Amino acid sequence: MGGNPAPVLDPQESCQRAIAAGLIVRCAHPLNCETPIHALIGGVVTPNAHFYVRNHFQIPRLDPETWRLSVGGVVERPLSLGLRGMRSLRSQTLVATLECAGNGRSLLHPAVEGEQWQLGAVSTAEWAGVPLVEVLERAGIKASAREVLFRGADAGSLETETGAIHFERSLTLADARDSGALLAYAMNGEPLPVQHGYPLRLIVPGWYAVASVKWLTEIEVIDRAFRGHFQTERYIVEREQCGRAVSEPVTLQRVRALITEPEPGARVARGTLTIRGVAWSGAAPIAHVELSVGGGVWQAARLIGERQRHGWQWWELLTRVEQCGLIGIRARATDLAGRVQPEQPEWNRLGYATNQIQEVPIRVGERGIRQ
Amino acid sequence: MGGNPAPVLDPQESCQRAIAAGLIVRCAHPLNCETPIHALIGGVVTPNAHFYVRNHFQIPRLDPETWRLSVGGVVERPLSLGLRGMRSLRSQTLVATLECAGNGRSLLHPAVEGEQWQLGAVSTAEWAGVPLVEVLERAGIKASAREVLFRGADAGSLETETGAIHFERSLTLADARDSGALLAYAMNGEPLPVQHGYPLRLIVPGWYAVASVKWLTEIEVIDRAFRGHFQTERYIVEREQCGRAVSEPVTLQRVRALITEPEPGARVARGTLTIRGVAWSGAAPIAHVELSVGGGVWQAARLIGERQRHGWQWWELLTRVEQCGLIGIRARATDLAGRVQPEQPEWNRLGYATNQIQEVPIRVGERGIRQ
Repeated sequence: MGGNPAPVLDPQESCQRAIAAGLIVRCAHPLNCETPIHALIGGVVTPNAHFYVRNHFQIPRLDPETWRLSVGGVVERPLSLGLRGMRSLRSQTLVATLECAGNGRSLLHPAVEGEQWQLGAVSTAEWAGVPLVEVLERAGIKASAREVLFRGADAGSLETETGAIHFERSLTLADARDSGALLAYAMNGEPLPVQHGYPLRLIVPGWYAVASVKWLTEIEVIDRAFRGHFQTERYIVEREQCGRAVSEPVTLQRVRALITEPEPGARVARGTLTIRGVAWSGAAPIAHVELSVGGGVWQAARLIGERQRHGWQWWELLTRVEQCGLIGIRARATDLAGRVQPEQPEWNRLGYATNQIQEVPIRVGERGIRQ
Repeated sequence: MGGNPAPVLDPQESCQRAIAAGLIVRCAHPLNCETPIHALIGGVVTPNAHFYVRNHFQIPRLDPETWRLSVGGVVERPLSLGLRGMRSLRSQTLVATLECAGNGRSLLHPAVEGEQWQLGAVSTAEWAGVPLVEVLERAGIKASAREVLFRGADAGSLETETGAIHFERSLTLADARDSGALLAYAMNGEPLPVQHGYPLRLIVPGWYAVASVKWLTEIEVIDRAFRGHFQTERYIVEREQCGRAVSEPVTLQRVRALITEPEPGARVARGTLTIRGVAWSGAAPIAHVELSVGGGVWQAARLIGERQRHGWQWWELLTRVEQCGLIGIRARATDLAGRVQPEQPEWNRLGYATNQIQEVPIRVGERGIRQ
């Protein structure tokens, strides 16, 4: 491993581009932006320009002519594949929702460290690429293998470590084989944009997006459990239990519904009210979404569109609101595995994997806005 | 009907934008561009900037604050809906392939009049909007109704008519009710781009795209059969039969496969060969796609991704090619209704609804290109 660090995108330019596209910048350096959720407009895919951006280091600029994916470690046949080689392999397409494990962190009390995401660190795209299993089968995994390690070209130094490190994550061999992971070279019908991992990104459907390593250059099959910064120091849900700190890594996205319409603080007229949003769960497709308006009973929303195994589910409720004043709209999703959103976030030291029921406050008046 | 004509987009600017996005401009005024098919990269949706553009007149620029959709004619309750009003109605999302009825016209011999489309006047998007039936039900159709007429804001004069006319098309009442038509305000998660009908476009899934009226301003339920220029003078398949001209209107898209990779004239190495493409049919989902390489037997391609009722089907075949020299790759699609592509195009006077098997010539050499 090693080699020269890749050139990086001009941080100022990439930040300005994100702002121009309407993203909400949380951090300019490295660039971290969330999607303005209330701007989402009925559909499964999020346009690439509006897809939330999460980086740990600066954005590497990889040359498609010289870029290679190396596949090594405890394998029978180490591989080195160029972009053309990747594109000649068996392909797959996959609609998948990616959510940052820290999405909603800013809503925790007491506050915790880390990017202060509101609820827009989530987006959905149609990905195309090569099934991970296809590449692993070609390399031939040896019997001593335990995990598959993925390494990105993005690198930098951390306060807690000496020297520069790359972004690295592993999957157990079972997850690498059974998760439906894809080595994606396309996103919504276009080559991956540079901020989303050009030329190749691992997509692990249903998992928090930290598993979906960007700017992938290396796959190493290893005979041990990987212990890297982003695997064991971060992206773990750490809680106190019986006076001791216990932790578990973030894996599958927890079930969650998000209200896209009306937006928080909206002023609406008494009478008919249209509520829309999305819902997703890493464990299973969405079974139903219920809405409570102004503290009223839970009403079932209508699920819209064709169901995708790993893409979020669009939903809507056309209802009436009779009371005036400030009221809250709450949305609660349940998945086909029976998981349901909790009332309160599960506070944890690093603020990961929260999925409490969202409440959107709106103001209902006698007179409304022009229809 | 009537009113002042809408302001139009600057034709030079819109043409330059299309060229910058990589579209192939067939006509600058009105703007008509096709999608570079070989640039499509494994996925269902076509990015909005790459979606083919077909216009009959200049592109109207409609103000979303003053735009209204009027619904009238033989209805119980005439309606006038603003964009906000449309967005408050029951919504639906739909992945649908649009194909121009003249797609492939340039391949006809003898040549026929009309836009000289090659094979890129076809694209797929995820549309979101209001089911047409929802609006028709609200208006209440009277018993005397026979057809539903759709009128766009685009207008101009024709050689064959005096004065300016609007783009207008009708559907029979049965088709308006049963076709799954959508009044779409969003395309791939964004408001409709201006060249694709902003703020509202009728989408009739499975039909040739002429039925999907852009810049929609008026729906009129009528008690007669509509006979407008784009209904009865154009978009009809006109043939000689027993010495007489017979014609039928274009409706459902005929079954067709398109090879996106390799591109025509590509030089490839002897050995493994990856062939990819899309296939669609208005009548039914795709059942299978077969490939013949260099005159060889038909081999079944693998269908990729989740099946969409009205979106094209991505497919691929990983095969071997042993003979050197110039060879042809042919792709043949069959739909679940048993329809299959013909060997030769069905020549007709105006060059509509062709769907012959496509052949892509490539050159196979001893030595290839870097993988």
